[in-house]
Amino acid sequence: MSDILKGIGASDGVAIAPVYSLEEPDLSFDSKSIDAGQEDAEVERFKAAFNQSKVEITKIRNHAEESVGPEHAAIFDAHLLVLDDPEFLGPIESHIRNDQKSAPQALLETRDQFVAIFENMDNDYMKERAADIKDVSKRVLAHMLGKELPDPSKIDTPVVIVAEDLTPSDTAQLDKNFVKGFVTNIGGRTSHSAIMSRSLEIPAVVGTKDITSRANAGDHIIVDGSAGEVIVNPTEEEVLVYKDKEAKVQEERAELQKLVDEPSKTMDGISVELAANIGTPDDLDGVRSNGAEGIGLYRTEFLYMGRNELPTEDEQYEAYKKVLKDMGDKPVVVRTIDIGGDKELPYMDLPKEMNPFLGYRAIRMALDNQDLFRTQLRALLRASQHGNLKIMFPMIATIDEFNRAKAMLIEEKDKLTDEGEKVKEDIEVGIMIEIPSAAIIADQFAKVVDFFSIGTNDLIQYTMAADRMNESVSYLYQPYHPALLRLIKMVIDAAHKEGKWAGMCGEMAGDAHAVPLLVGLGLDEFSMSASSVLKARKQISELKKTDMERLAQAAVECSSTEEVLALVEEYTQRA
Amino acid sequence: MSDILKGIGASDGVAIAPVYSLEEPDLSFDSKSIDAGQEDAEVERFKAAFNQSKVEITKIRNHAEESVGPEHAAIFDAHLLVLDDPEFLGPIESHIRNDQKSAPQALLETRDQFVAIFENMDNDYMKERAADIKDVSKRVLAHMLGKELPDPSKIDTPVVIVAEDLTPSDTAQLDKNFVKGFVTNIGGRTSHSAIMSRSLEIPAVVGTKDITSRANAGDHIIVDGSAGEVIVNPTEEEVLVYKDKEAKVQEERAELQKLVDEPSKTMDGISVELAANIGTPDDLDGVRSNGAEGIGLYRTEFLYMGRNELPTEDEQYEAYKKVLKDMGDKPVVVRTIDIGGDKELPYMDLPKEMNPFLGYRAIRMALDNQDLFRTQLRALLRASQHGNLKIMFPMIATIDEFNRAKAMLIEEKDKLTDEGEKVKEDIEVGIMIEIPSAAIIADQFAKVVDFFSIGTNDLIQYTMAADRMNESVSYLYQPYHPALLRLIKMVIDAAHKEGKWAGMCGEMAGDAHAVPLLVGLGLDEFSMSASSVLKARKQISELKKTDMERLAQAAVECSSTEEVLALVEEYTQRA
Repeated sequence: MSDILKGIGASDGVAIAPVYSLEEPDLSFDSKSIDAGQEDAEVERFKAAFNQSKVEITKIRNHAEESVGPEHAAIFDAHLLVLDDPEFLGPIESHIRNDQKSAPQALLETRDQFVAIFENMDNDYMKERAADIKDVSKRVLAHMLGKELPDPSKIDTPVVIVAEDLTPSDTAQLDKNFVKGFVTNIGGRTSHSAIMSRSLEIPAVVGTKDITSRANAGDHIIVDGSAGEVIVNPTEEEVLVYKDKEAKVQEERAELQKLVDEPSKTMDGISVELAANIGTPDDLDGVRSNGAEGIGLYRTEFLYMGRNELPTEDEQYEAYKKVLKDMGDKPVVVRTIDIGGDKELPYMDLPKEMNPFLGYRAIRMALDNQDLFRTQLRALLRASQHGNLKIMFPMIATIDEFNRAKAMLIEEKDKLTDEGEKVKEDIEVGIMIEIPSAAIIADQFAKVVDFFSIGTNDLIQYTMAADRMNESVSYLYQPYHPALLRLIKMVIDAAHKEGKWAGMCGEMAGDAHAVPLLVGLGLDEFSMSASSVLKARKQISELKKTDMERLAQAAVECSSTEEVLALVEEYTQRA
Repeated sequence: MSDILKGIGASDGVAIAPVYSLEEPDLSFDSKSIDAGQEDAEVERFKAAFNQSKVEITKIRNHAEESVGPEHAAIFDAHLLVLDDPEFLGPIESHIRNDQKSAPQALLETRDQFVAIFENMDNDYMKERAADIKDVSKRVLAHMLGKELPDPSKIDTPVVIVAEDLTPSDTAQLDKNFVKGFVTNIGGRTSHSAIMSRSLEIPAVVGTKDITSRANAGDHIIVDGSAGEVIVNPTEEEVLVYKDKEAKVQEERAELQKLVDEPSKTMDGISVELAANIGTPDDLDGVRSNGAEGIGLYRTEFLYMGRNELPTEDEQYEAYKKVLKDMGDKPVVVRTIDIGGDKELPYMDLPKEMNPFLGYRAIRMALDNQDLFRTQLRALLRASQHGNLKIMFPMIATIDEFNRAKAMLIEEKDKLTDEGEKVKEDIEVGIMIEIPSAAIIADQFAKVVDFFSIGTNDLIQYTMAADRMNESVSYLYQPYHPALLRLIKMVIDAAHKEGKWAGMCGEMAGDAHAVPLLVGLGLDEFSMSASSVLKARKQISELKKTDMERLAQAAVECSSTEEVLALVEEYTQRA
């Protein structure tokens, strides 16, 4: 008989495959003190384990960069930093020399001290640092004890991974071609492993409590990430049901796939542009296969992450050129560096801030770090000849900030032209609208910029004064709140009045409840995850623009999110 | 000849008095290890010093509460918590027992470890914790060494304090009647001592580098906090110049004092209300002596701070009653609890957050902690019969939040009436407008609330997405930015359309550049520090409302703060 477990669905989809048990080796050891005179040998043992871990992590890091992309490799740079941190190494050596602890004991005591401090802070960033320290310490401990940690990068047949939990270094090594799903004992929807499963689009169920004791290597397993259900050793009947379910998912996908070369038009024939958000040139496959009509947001941060120094102008040029060439004459909106806030760089000394989301990030940092910023602008300008480039500045709050950034762009363009480089003449230059002030004076901005792209993730959190990562105030993260719709309307109306276009590149742009409102408000460009494009194209083809205009008019006069959603329901069912 | 030093002006005004040197005792000690067998004695020494420090700090705490108010006593509760924290005591005892350190050595090593961790965080809140740990450790160390720390509460003649720096416990003990000014070697405009000097209205210059070696007990000294200048042993001529300067300050004050019973009216006879912000009933003296026409913001947080448990309903009732009685029929707007964010309570387990300014604070916390919130509402309702109470909810983002808070108020009112308590019938209930969403749908809010009070400190930081405490982005804290003026206009217009009133209780309400704009936008009530009321009354009496309306109309169409300020200049000089 099959064994059915309920957990928390972390990532949609169905997977059926044999179990791969990510079993930890036994890392227990004798905790007795060392004898006097043994200190030097024990310090040697501790240092050797650190060095072995460094070599191993560097190898994993490079492998991850190649196989899953640089953004997944960044975690290992953080780990390498821990292994070189004198604040971490010092106490370990001191425990060995002064307190006669064995190397493993000294390591764990120091680890626990640091983890306690970081975890006590009840702050997501610090908690992630705690997870890193635990992850690294486990690897060092394994080396001290001569044990080997499981290596998920060696998986080369289709499997579903079963584990207590997945560490940051585990998830960074998963290969989507073979790992069809995973199931863990612990974790919730926002735990590290859950977030990674969604970003890798691998069906996953977390928080099952005891999957590791109920599923073993050799067992077959079904993971239903949508329902949060796991079936160990399913009956033939169950396999049929879930194969059917998997088939339906595939069928819907195939149905949508037919729209890949279709235009994006409402039922009454109004065209909009459906574009994709990308992070690296690796994402271009998804853009093509989902029929996106452009790139509405190319996040350039990943060029800066997962490395030990700034990327050169040429490295950037190559990345931009690849994307622009690949997209041909389709528009590619590149956002300039958006580092700071929750995104950090190990090689830049950015301030730790009390409220990083209200802090020194994106254009604020770029305007102060002109070398870094001008290098990026030059790389973009040089790449411009290879396609249809549009440049976008993030986190603009005042017109002065835009003017200063644009002036630097023009200076670099003139320099390049003087140097004999070819630079396209008609590059559009626009801004992200993600700060309330920019939305409120969008009429003034529309006179000087070429386009707007509304970044709803940030715009919502500032408009509602609620950190989108903070669960205590997540009830205020309301994309359909009338205040937000009014800001969006101001931005679109202001753009159109000056003959400019307005897009959106936050999660909201691909949200089925938001699309009718945005069509009604007159949004010109919708940029979303590539995987949402076809669904949005289908939805838009079933909407009448004139109806949606009436919907939008009514929605901005509502007093709450609930009223807005009821209206959306009413107008879309009527259609 | 006199010795002139330049430093950083931390608090305006001029003081001339003899030097009081807040000299530290010599706290150096022999750092050699203790002998085996001495551990118990040394642990005793450490524990005795902790106990003596606890007794001393409790005494200082109670004295500070009486003499300078409970908000200055809170710091000592934090210190007492450090003295009881096992995470701090544990390592000290362990250093003594396991590493044969002396008690002072063990204390300082543990202190340095904690301070390094906290200071490295580059986070204002954590840095303050570091300052607390240093402050407490100094006191414990003095007790271990049998030395006495200087006691600024014993000062009983007029002096100017000269010191390396002032610790949190020093400033909490200063008596304004005797301490006429202070000068320190280190610190900047936002250091702890600078902030305290402004809040105590004591002229102060910080960051002079070497005042302690250039001024000694017995010297006379002039502090010019406006110019950031210090003169040690001034010439007779210099004393005359500065007495003159001091006299002019006094004269202007006397001139303003004549307006204390005058109405607040523009040149063309339009009345506004000039109210004061207060924190405790102690502030009522200032309200009276400055002729405020009401209290536009009674911050009730201080009732909750500087103590070890929640205030009872009766304690709160007495505080509210005192203020209401004292103000007679003048309006008193009481803001319900605004804890969280940067304000913490030792006895409440509030989450530490990654972005506290976008977090779980004020009404968000109150709606979840109904016992706490309803106790405050009952105290307010019972006190209502003693004066002209208006109740205001902070950090409202959605109408639903207001409705829920108001429903609890009505429930408590009904319960009290059933219990036979007298409750006033016509209490106005309003909201702070400090979140962009509330300003943007002010037209909807105006249908359900009785009044608005615009909290500009927060509204600016959310509208510009810039933490007002973060120096890297302080350039974006722009009170006169057109986006902000437009939000203010939306709020005032929305209120008037529904026959409600709109006030403002942020720092902007008393700002000389803002007052003309606010008069022009039609603000009904201006609430500010009591000490700014008379200056504002004078300024308003020199403005023509009709001119200011034209100014405001032009200002909301500007594209930058600079343009707005130029317009204000133009319109007010013309008047």
